[in-house]
Amino acid sequence: MLREVDVLIIGGGPAGVETYRALAALRRNKSLKIELVRREEKSIVPCGIPYTGVSVPLDRNVIPDARLGIRAAIDVVTEVDPDRGVARTAGGTTYKYRHLVLATGSVSTEPRFEGSDRAGIFKVVKDLEYLRRMWNYIRQARRVAVVGGGPVGIEFADELRRMEREVVLIELMPRLLPTAFDPEFGELARAQLVELDVDVRLGTAVVRALGEGRVEAVELGDGQRIPVDAVLWAAGMRPDTALAAAAGIKLGPTGAIAVDRRMETSHSGVYAVGDCAEKAHFITGRPVWFGSSSLAAHEARIAAGSILGLEWEGGGALCALITVVGDIALGRVGVTEEEARQAGIKVAVGKASAVDKHPPELPGARNILAKLIFNASDGGLIGAEVAAGKHGGEIINILAALVRRRATAREVYLGQFATQPWVTASPIAYPIIRAAENAIVTHGLR
Amino acid sequence: MLREVDVLIIGGGPAGVETYRALAALRRNKSLKIELVRREEKSIVPCGIPYTGVSVPLDRNVIPDARLGIRAAIDVVTEVDPDRGVARTAGGTTYKYRHLVLATGSVSTEPRFEGSDRAGIFKVVKDLEYLRRMWNYIRQARRVAVVGGGPVGIEFADELRRMEREVVLIELMPRLLPTAFDPEFGELARAQLVELDVDVRLGTAVVRALGEGRVEAVELGDGQRIPVDAVLWAAGMRPDTALAAAAGIKLGPTGAIAVDRRMETSHSGVYAVGDCAEKAHFITGRPVWFGSSSLAAHEARIAAGSILGLEWEGGGALCALITVVGDIALGRVGVTEEEARQAGIKVAVGKASAVDKHPPELPGARNILAKLIFNASDGGLIGAEVAAGKHGGEIINILAALVRRRATAREVYLGQFATQPWVTASPIAYPIIRAAENAIVTHGLR
Repeated sequence: MLREVDVLIIGGGPAGVETYRALAALRRNKSLKIELVRREEKSIVPCGIPYTGVSVPLDRNVIPDARLGIRAAIDVVTEVDPDRGVARTAGGTTYKYRHLVLATGSVSTEPRFEGSDRAGIFKVVKDLEYLRRMWNYIRQARRVAVVGGGPVGIEFADELRRMEREVVLIELMPRLLPTAFDPEFGELARAQLVELDVDVRLGTAVVRALGEGRVEAVELGDGQRIPVDAVLWAAGMRPDTALAAAAGIKLGPTGAIAVDRRMETSHSGVYAVGDCAEKAHFITGRPVWFGSSSLAAHEARIAAGSILGLEWEGGGALCALITVVGDIALGRVGVTEEEARQAGIKVAVGKASAVDKHPPELPGARNILAKLIFNASDGGLIGAEVAAGKHGGEIINILAALVRRRATAREVYLGQFATQPWVTASPIAYPIIRAAENAIVTHGLR
Repeated sequence: MLREVDVLIIGGGPAGVETYRALAALRRNKSLKIELVRREEKSIVPCGIPYTGVSVPLDRNVIPDARLGIRAAIDVVTEVDPDRGVARTAGGTTYKYRHLVLATGSVSTEPRFEGSDRAGIFKVVKDLEYLRRMWNYIRQARRVAVVGGGPVGIEFADELRRMEREVVLIELMPRLLPTAFDPEFGELARAQLVELDVDVRLGTAVVRALGEGRVEAVELGDGQRIPVDAVLWAAGMRPDTALAAAAGIKLGPTGAIAVDRRMETSHSGVYAVGDCAEKAHFITGRPVWFGSSSLAAHEARIAAGSILGLEWEGGGALCALITVVGDIALGRVGVTEEEARQAGIKVAVGKASAVDKHPPELPGARNILAKLIFNASDGGLIGAEVAAGKHGGEIINILAALVRRRATAREVYLGQFATQPWVTASPIAYPIIRAAENAIVTHGLR
């Protein structure tokens, strides 16, 4: 069957769905024909996966097609010919498109230890059936090892404790959240997990899974064996570029699909958005890979603009992220102090802590820690990290707006923010302002 | 007694305290001599006053002098001579100052009904002893009338319900929050109060208090009598300018002390900050009075910069505010749609609603309503209003950062924000972005 479409979108995750939705919302020519092809009957909400153990029913953790006005063709694109503007599917459809959007997402890396073929060893797979089997297995387990101390790993550990499993969390680096946060924030995450009775092992790796058919223990680098009934590999995702690579579309140095600021690939009329696409870091300009649904949705809107001729350009990836563990939310945006130093940027750091209600004696008050990273040469805000109670999750997005405008320390300090006893720190202690003041005073920024 | 100081601050509320604290933090010359004179032994946290009925002990709702490094002289300044740089106190001190900061705050208006001298009729007075008497009285009451449906009135009504009093809330205008929010947000507040079993009376006024010595009822404009045991007048504050006016310092058209962008008054070396000072509206440029602790603290930092020769200038008042009623937080910044129209600005409004967790089936999820007000001629964001669960309180501060940079609809739409299942809306439904999209699509902004 031959189908001619204006826009063909491959992939039904946040990137593909938001491209479709934004195109439909923004198009002026209502006859623009958009088709989304995806493999799965229902698309999973990727960030929700760790919470489908007990917090939310698995079959509710799906992207609501109908509410978003999406009609998807359930099929598998097997081949793309970007020179001829043609794509073919396993179901026998040949698409002729004017614009192609690759939104093929990311997949888990493979477990990097021996014996990973044993039953009871799982990866983060964005597939309802796989996850159903995984949770059913884990519900029979008493003790679970989570491998990987990044956001996904700590969120799984948190949920597994809600399920009253015994949890051991194993991270290769000597700290938690090693690639997303500076050490003091990883330490806050560790303290929360320890409080939740998670057995946190840092600076060590699983080298081997042991057991007869089913996993019964993992062996660490020092030879120690930990009895477990299940293992969850949460130590990394990678862009799914198989289709693009086979089509001769250029990949970047990170291995993801290379795109320009309009999200266009090496082939005119072919776009890549979301986890399959490489990003230019907003601050350093360097190519990075940063798996993120919110960044995917942003890129989808840029691509929709490009397809509609709106001349929109992204400014690069802010790399904003929130993760939650126990009662705290940890957010980051721009560069961490460590990332800035690695990029050769001289930094001026300001920190402040505050209580998220005022007076602090109001019930339910929690601590906020804010860290602002300025470029010491021009005083511009290049990054921020925040730890707060759950109701401070949005604080990182205030900082995202400020990093995006490259606000100076003085501009941040002279910002105006609303405060209210139940929902924010006091006007005198407001942590963003006090962290800017700390940078100004400590580093002589003006 | 004669005391020579570099900076004399009159008033111990957030404006005065933050001026002191910021001066001390930012000064390079550590011998700069700062003195703060205030009337009260302990300074109350003004925004916390409504919550001292039961949520927080009254004597904990005070500004923590010691923690902030503030030493205050407890005295009353009776006279200022700005030409000679001298101030005199009731306690017999004559201050000779180089810089004077007026931070005299605001006081309640007087009840505008007959019989307001009866026992059991209270105002919002920033004084521990007064408030102690008020709460003791109210604890004996069964039914309380709150007069005024602005933020302070609805916050008191909320707290009085927590105290299990019967509450009738009376607002002259036909809607709640009439001067701070557009009608749809006032309606959300009303619905919350009704859910809390508050008897909300709109478009009517108390004309008379009845009773023998103690108040026993209030009479409304239509002659209806409502039996009550206490009345709380929460229908307006006004700047306290007595000292400034007597000293010949110029007041502005709103009746507050006129200041320039450096917070300096008509008299060189004399500054006014906080509720006693007039503001220039950030968007309209018009003189406004806007009582707000967070704005007061901002102005205090500007004044500290002026005194220290840092050449800081405020850009005008963003008029950002959060209020809480029941389970929802309502925030506004810049101008409301109504304020924009009154100022003759042609507006392009975008709205969106979303759920504050994703998937929405996660426990505790609540609705968010976001309204963005753009200037139709240049597409710049000039105002925003948000209603959200308490953990969305900070969302208005993201918008405060965007209004301050005069972001266009497109810049807002192409913003990057972090999302996480427990603490934000989904990346596809993120309400700030969807409201910007709504404005772009509805009004053809680009």
